[in-house]
Amino acid sequence: MKQVGIVGATGYTGLELCRLLQHHPQVQITHLYAGRSAGQSVADVFPNLHFLKDQSYHAFDPKAIPETLDILFFALPHGEAHRMMADVRAHTSAKIIDLSADFRLTDADLYQSTYGEVHGSPDLMSAVVQGFPELYADAIRSADFVACPGCYPTSVILGLKPLRDAGLAETAIADCKSGVSGAGKALKATSMFSEVDGAVAAYGTGVHRHNVEMNQHLDAQIFFSPHLMPMKRGILSTLYVSNTQHLSQSDVEALYTSAYQDCPFIALRYDLAMPSTKYVSGSNMCMISVKVLPESGQIVVFSAIDNLIKGASGQAIQVMNVMHGWDETTGLTASAWGI
Amino acid sequence: MKQVGIVGATGYTGLELCRLLQHHPQVQITHLYAGRSAGQSVADVFPNLHFLKDQSYHAFDPKAIPETLDILFFALPHGEAHRMMADVRAHTSAKIIDLSADFRLTDADLYQSTYGEVHGSPDLMSAVVQGFPELYADAIRSADFVACPGCYPTSVILGLKPLRDAGLAETAIADCKSGVSGAGKALKATSMFSEVDGAVAAYGTGVHRHNVEMNQHLDAQIFFSPHLMPMKRGILSTLYVSNTQHLSQSDVEALYTSAYQDCPFIALRYDLAMPSTKYVSGSNMCMISVKVLPESGQIVVFSAIDNLIKGASGQAIQVMNVMHGWDETTGLTASAWGI
Amino acid sequence: MKQVGIVGATGYTGLELCRLLQHHPQVQITHLYAGRSAGQSVADVFPNLHFLKDQSYHAFDPKAIPETLDILFFALPHGEAHRMMADVRAHTSAKIIDLSADFRLTDADLYQSTYGEVHGSPDLMSAVVQGFPELYADAIRSADFVACPGCYPTSVILGLKPLRDAGLAETAIADCKSGVSGAGKALKATSMFSEVDGAVAAYGTGVHRHNVEMNQHLDAQIFFSPHLMPMKRGILSTLYVSNTQHLSQSDVEALYTSAYQDCPFIALRYDLAMPSTKYVSGSNMCMISVKVLPESGQIVVFSAIDNLIKGASGQAIQVMNVMHGWDETTGLTASAWGI
Amino acid sequence: MKQVGIVGATGYTGLELCRLLQHHPQVQITHLYAGRSAGQSVADVFPNLHFLKDQSYHAFDPKAIPETLDILFFALPHGEAHRMMADVRAHTSAKIIDLSADFRLTDADLYQSTYGEVHGSPDLMSAVVQGFPELYADAIRSADFVACPGCYPTSVILGLKPLRDAGLAETAIADCKSGVSGAGKALKATSMFSEVDGAVAAYGTGVHRHNVEMNQHLDAQIFFSPHLMPMKRGILSTLYVSNTQHLSQSDVEALYTSAYQDCPFIALRYDLAMPSTKYVSGSNMCMISVKVLPESGQIVVFSAIDNLIKGASGQAIQVMNVMHGWDETTGLTASAWGI
Repeated sequence: MKQVGIVGATGYTGLELCRLLQHHPQVQITHLYAGRSAGQSVADVFPNLHFLKDQSYHAFDPKAIPETLDILFFALPHGEAHRMMADVRAHTSAKIIDLSADFRLTDADLYQSTYGEVHGSPDLMSAVVQGFPELYADAIRSADFVACPGCYPTSVILGLKPLRDAGLAETAIADCKSGVSGAGKALKATSMFSEVDGAVAAYGTGVHRHNVEMNQHLDAQIFFSPHLMPMKRGILSTLYVSNTQHLSQSDVEALYTSAYQDCPFIALRYDLAMPSTKYVSGSNMCMISVKVLPESGQIVVFSAIDNLIKGASGQAIQVMNVMHGWDETTGLTASAWGI
Repeated sequence: MKQVGIVGATGYTGLELCRLLQHHPQVQITHLYAGRSAGQSVADVFPNLHFLKDQSYHAFDPKAIPETLDILFFALPHGEAHRMMADVRAHTSAKIIDLSADFRLTDADLYQSTYGEVHGSPDLMSAVVQGFPELYADAIRSADFVACPGCYPTSVILGLKPLRDAGLAETAIADCKSGVSGAGKALKATSMFSEVDGAVAAYGTGVHRHNVEMNQHLDAQIFFSPHLMPMKRGILSTLYVSNTQHLSQSDVEALYTSAYQDCPFIALRYDLAMPSTKYVSGSNMCMISVKVLPESGQIVVFSAIDNLIKGASGQAIQVMNVMHGWDETTGLTASAWGI
Repeated sequence: MKQVGIVGATGYTGLELCRLLQHHPQVQITHLYAGRSAGQSVADVFPNLHFLKDQSYHAFDPKAIPETLDILFFALPHGEAHRMMADVRAHTSAKIIDLSADFRLTDADLYQSTYGEVHGSPDLMSAVVQGFPELYADAIRSADFVACPGCYPTSVILGLKPLRDAGLAETAIADCKSGVSGAGKALKATSMFSEVDGAVAAYGTGVHRHNVEMNQHLDAQIFFSPHLMPMKRGILSTLYVSNTQHLSQSDVEALYTSAYQDCPFIALRYDLAMPSTKYVSGSNMCMISVKVLPESGQIVVFSAIDNLIKGASGQAIQVMNVMHGWDETTGLTASAWGI
Repeated sequence: MKQVGIVGATGYTGLELCRLLQHHPQVQITHLYAGRSAGQSVADVFPNLHFLKDQSYHAFDPKAIPETLDILFFALPHGEAHRMMADVRAHTSAKIIDLSADFRLTDADLYQSTYGEVHGSPDLMSAVVQGFPELYADAIRSADFVACPGCYPTSVILGLKPLRDAGLAETAIADCKSGVSGAGKALKATSMFSEVDGAVAAYGTGVHRHNVEMNQHLDAQIFFSPHLMPMKRGILSTLYVSNTQHLSQSDVEALYTSAYQDCPFIALRYDLAMPSTKYVSGSNMCMISVKVLPESGQIVVFSAIDNLIKGASGQAIQVMNVMHGWDETTGLTASAWGI
């Protein structure tokens, strides 16, 4: 059994890592790190994690990482991991999987212009492997430091990649609908129940930071238009692509079927009457539908994920599986809840 | 005081008509018509309508319409009004305002191909005036039979009209997010709480019947992509238009400001951080924001309405006001709820 | 037209006061006071208040209250009004209606033990009239300083008063279910969407501060057990009373019918299959049902209100109406939304 | 591996059985039976059950049960299993676990008076073992036909049993708050999103059929008062018991700790600030808090479960584990979701 530590274990993605890893047959969670909750038990912070209730949270010191740790997940808000990662890497040989945005961009200048702060570990930006198993499995297999993509980019990139590889979608519109947990556990007015419930809202149209990631992985100009939904989890990305090659429905289906034939977490469901986040929330699946509408010249792709699982913690575990040569689905075969 | 009757008074739009008309100073509701609920009191069916509780629902007979009735609203599901309207018109001189889809299309063949049934009153299709006060106020002023537009078309058409009039938006993508009440009071699996809560879903992409209305009023080819939201009320339409004329933000704002300067129910809010249905639900407002994003060549318009008010019953009352020469806002100045 | 000012106009009850007073024929809102939002316009803070959008918020100075103000509502969180009220009363002859908890208790020691702070205006505690129109209309008619009851106490006291007056309910259990807006606009973890949605929770069982109010008005020992619901508005209080007098269903109905015959905002609905907050949310109604279950010796009373209207801002307006001799329902006859 | 069949596999509890059993190491689902969905695949009906997508639903014939079946779950609405069970028992030696209400009562007359129909297999009512592992583990161990308790009774009985065994709670009030999935998948007005969202309602006060079960298992007179919550899953039962023995908080805690020391699915959390369904939804846990409030003479117990898991499908699997001598927690250690 590999020993796993989680830095930032009391955020939403930290919670999900704990919940999901509890049943992973190859690892045991041995170290939980937190800031304000250091010293508290899991029972204090997350009564839902009943079977982990006796573990405790500790303060994380990058210079005092236990030697027994084999794998270290970073589940911090963006802007924290990049400040400590050089220290971390100097003091442990554990494999590192970062869920934050800090190492998703390949360039320190781009990071600075996108996130508004100087990157603290620019030297590491070239060492990191991008943790997108459907795109970069080979690189992940031999990596010891991986940065996982964001939730929105995961849904958009998986939704567009087969079209992009076929030469379409050089530009595309990504109208994305996300649950509120995507904004994390921080107290903010726009995450309050009385503000969110009963309403849908748009934000960050054309200027959201995740747009950079999408363009980088797809080598495209995506127009990203995110929306906040009155629900906790889930992203439905509706992707509009001009059908410049006049492909038929079966042509496009063939592209997706071929591209994802070896991807256990891509569910291609061309027949869905109502593509919905309901079919993926609670699971690590990305469910994709495509519709070719000849009269309008549009191809519409629906890509649905659970933002906290395939969009964050589940994907990080999938990455861990690939890094270790374990079956990619190990610990991740839970079905979506449905109800 | 004009006497008002409502046919189909127990559906959601009938309920809204009752709730809104209760405070209208020029009319009194004197006749409520219903099918299965005929014989019941308002108190039985809608305990929320406390101040109307002693009124009762009656069966509607097109051939026995009380002579005292001045105005008759039809708030039936589509497919019912067109079968009886010839009889209705023959037996009353009351002004008719139809909220259903039955008289929204100008052509019987188009109705048949869109709604899958033969139109029952094709002769009346040319007599009807389309009840879109922001577009056709003059015609409405002298009309005695008006058909109100659908909820989705209202939001999309109001959102795109100024661009269309400037020669843009000959094609556009309308990614619309609607609350569940838009599906009406009928029992269906896709309207059940356990199916809807916590999920967003797409449906009818590119083939929804409301698309025909949009194209008709805008003389355009709109690509209509509706989505179902886990909320009761509200539509947010995100409208994507190619900026083929390289207009600036202020150019586009000027188009909207000019187009809607005399429209009391259009709230132009160019400064909103998060365009949201929250700012209109409960009111007859259509709140519009525009964003011009030069790098992408996109103009994005957000158009938010309450589907049951500006998208249905409120608009019908607005039409009634215009038909009678009353101030357009009479009885309709309630603020959106906010919380 | 009386001139109205609102201190604390940007909280949820301040928002509701603005929304409701907008249509009140006897008053106009002339002064809006706020803390952090001073200097901003209504349009900035509450885009939903479209028809008030050009008014602005100002800082409130108790020593510089405009002479033209006739009525001043205080809609602050508890603990603020009591510190400034002596100053306020010294500098204005406007009638004061306080929505906070600061003047609800009749005794400074009780305030201190309940709210954990020394009361800043103990001399005023005997001058204030309790703003419960159904209980103390006569006193309110001649009052110039009124404190409105809390949301939970309003629902519980109205639900139990007729039984209490008949000698029952010396003790009772009040199992109350409240929407989240009752916790106000403050940022707290327990009000976050991702924490609240999809869950019900209990809190403050037997120790909630509103319990004191209930006991005081009813001269009883209520066991108050509040619960937080995944909804924005509404309180349903389920009240359990031992039927020590072996009253029949019709006996109990007669008590309520008699007690509330002159109360326009009490809806007695003995026939409801499902007593629900749905029938009152959006209105100033308190809807009451009673069920006498002989085998168990229980009387169960359901009392439903909108916590922000009958439980706060609507009740304050009702109080204002009574203070001025206007019809008690003026500006308050909006129906509950239903949907 | 034991072979499992599920009769009624397309209802909500059938869905949950599939979802939960997918990971059970001792069984495989080999036969899925359904009515209207017979002939369809899992992919057609429940796209969320991705890893079972290729299985199909079949019509169930009690006289043609495959010999290979070892375990048969019945997850039908009440009123169906009792009509066919005699045939079933005559044609299979598979162990039977019934999730419906049909065999929960020990007496055919009581069934008839409670459910309004003649029981179809009265002879089997004495053969059945009640599937409450915390109460009747010994009997379950040797049973081959078990009826699982209802969702409300599970939460109430587990919440009161230790007090009852100590001689308290001969009468008690059970104010229960349930998610809507408890009403099942049937189309009814009271389960529609637009009716449920944003409201709490009471129903069946003092007359709900589950009351009989509670009284039977506890040998008490419970006053059962159910409420419908705007959420999908979860029951929070707030249980009010007179502290006739003047027990202290630690006395009562000792009763519960002792009673449930060997029960892996009872989480005793005396320290919870806000007992909530959030801590159990998604898991098979029953989380119990107790509060002794000396001044009022009240003991309040909070008992929270997921109605579809510990209140139905999870409990049925727990029963299966006990029947087969497997560890009671096999396949059931998933943590509650939390978010």
